[in-house]
Amino acid sequence: CRYLQDAFKVPLVIQLTDDEKFLWKNLTIEECQRLARENAKDIIACGFDISKTFIFNDFDYVGGAFYRNMVQVAKRVTYNQAVGIFGFTGEDHIGKVSFPPVQAVPSFPSSFPHLFKGKENLRCLIPCAIDQDPYFRMTRDVAPRIGYHKPALIESLFFPALQGETGKMSASDPNSAIYVTDSAKDIKNKVNRYAFSGGQDSIEKHRQLGANLEVDIPIKYLSFFLEDDAELEHIKKEYGAGRMLTGEVKQRLVQVLTELVERHRTARANVTEEMVDAFMAVRPLPHMFD
Amino acid sequence: CRYLQDAFKVPLVIQLTDDEKFLWKNLTIEECQRLARENAKDIIACGFDISKTFIFNDFDYVGGAFYRNMVQVAKRVTYNQAVGIFGFTGEDHIGKVSFPPVQAVPSFPSSFPHLFKGKENLRCLIPCAIDQDPYFRMTRDVAPRIGYHKPALIESLFFPALQGETGKMSASDPNSAIYVTDSAKDIKNKVNRYAFSGGQDSIEKHRQLGANLEVDIPIKYLSFFLEDDAELEHIKKEYGAGRMLTGEVKQRLVQVLTELVERHRTARANVTEEMVDAFMAVRPLPHMFD
Repeated sequence: CRYLQDAFKVPLVIQLTDDEKFLWKNLTIEECQRLARENAKDIIACGFDISKTFIFNDFDYVGGAFYRNMVQVAKRVTYNQAVGIFGFTGEDHIGKVSFPPVQAVPSFPSSFPHLFKGKENLRCLIPCAIDQDPYFRMTRDVAPRIGYHKPALIESLFFPALQGETGKMSASDPNSAIYVTDSAKDIKNKVNRYAFSGGQDSIEKHRQLGANLEVDIPIKYLSFFLEDDAELEHIKKEYGAGRMLTGEVKQRLVQVLTELVERHRTARANVTEEMVDAFMAVRPLPHMFD
Repeated sequence: CRYLQDAFKVPLVIQLTDDEKFLWKNLTIEECQRLARENAKDIIACGFDISKTFIFNDFDYVGGAFYRNMVQVAKRVTYNQAVGIFGFTGEDHIGKVSFPPVQAVPSFPSSFPHLFKGKENLRCLIPCAIDQDPYFRMTRDVAPRIGYHKPALIESLFFPALQGETGKMSASDPNSAIYVTDSAKDIKNKVNRYAFSGGQDSIEKHRQLGANLEVDIPIKYLSFFLEDDAELEHIKKEYGAGRMLTGEVKQRLVQVLTELVERHRTARANVTEEMVDAFMAVRPLPHMFD
């Protein structure tokens, strides 16, 4: 998102679906709103341009033109269609059935009159993780029927779990992922103990056969996080040929991740409550296309 | 409602469900909002006390605390329960499934922080027509589970159609009801031609047997609209004994209805757009219990 905003100088609207969290988890509304605000801090720490960025949470923002668009969408999706897309059952509560339109309507500029009044015909690009695709398949189906453009999407894959491509990062298993709240010691411990290695069982065999880069998690993580492409190529070559050991690659990953997390932690510590209020204020963005 | 407000000096909140109209009818949102405002004029013309009355339409008011209560309710009703209460099918759109919580939450004072902040524990009495009962059965079921009082209800029966108790007033048959927009000539014509009579087929038989008051629509309408109880009793006695003819009873009803409609028309003509704005303004009602 940050890259897209910088590269194309476009306004960015970020929806924090605290209502979704409330509907799917056993948390109070207040706790979901608080978590949305914490989430906003992590987002702001990434360095978005406040003159082009509007962050909102559903529990506070839903209403007015946004609600009218929700109802427009809801009227065009049958329950059977929703079941086909989202797999609801009769035992699911109607809050789940009501939610998809909430996720859908930020695709439409008219949902944000304070930003786009007179520009309702703008097109929308949604960068999201691939699991959000069903919501936007539904949105793309409905959009032309209510006179709006279909949103375009860039869908990201999920980041593999430390345990390897077949595993899943899971909130219930803190060892499946590195958190931005992890200490340097946590990171070192997690990478060394849990990051799935494509290296061989013995040093002798490793020197002889080299690492299997296809399944090696430290290499995958470095591909994402190591900014120096030349260094990355060098590591891949040396490691793949068996001249570099897993331990050395992991050590470099720990370094990279620790710096990254440290950088984020510092940036996040500099995000004040006032900045959160400013990013989340319902306000015009007069220079959003400059 | 007017009587209850006068008698108990209570604040009154009136919900205009323009979103419901949009979801169930083939109208635009703008048209539904316009109709809600026309509806507000008819209500205001009844003489409610502006210092104790808040009128709102969903398309403009839904949001904030109201939306948070909607989500609270939606989370506690399964789709199967909603089907049991409202009879939805898989071909119904999800807007219908999403609507019941919108109808439910005006029962809770916390949905109106500008009115009841600090008084969230007030109890709510809902005067409504009997067809709205399913919504409030659902509401009464959910209320204690989210920490609110159950609302109490006064349910009114439907007014019979002109054609008789077994018929139904229907918007698609203008002759089934008297409208507040009917002219004196319309009223006379409708009552004389369509009001189902409990009188006998011939004058001779009528003088002999009298009218069947149980099925006679003019008598039913007079029971509602004739304010002079002594006169009503007199008419029932004379008509029932066959001394009064259907034509005479209808003539009195035409008179009563014409005056009533004329009175409403005059009162409604005095309702300005500014008064509508004032009744619908989101504002505190500081003297609402005086």
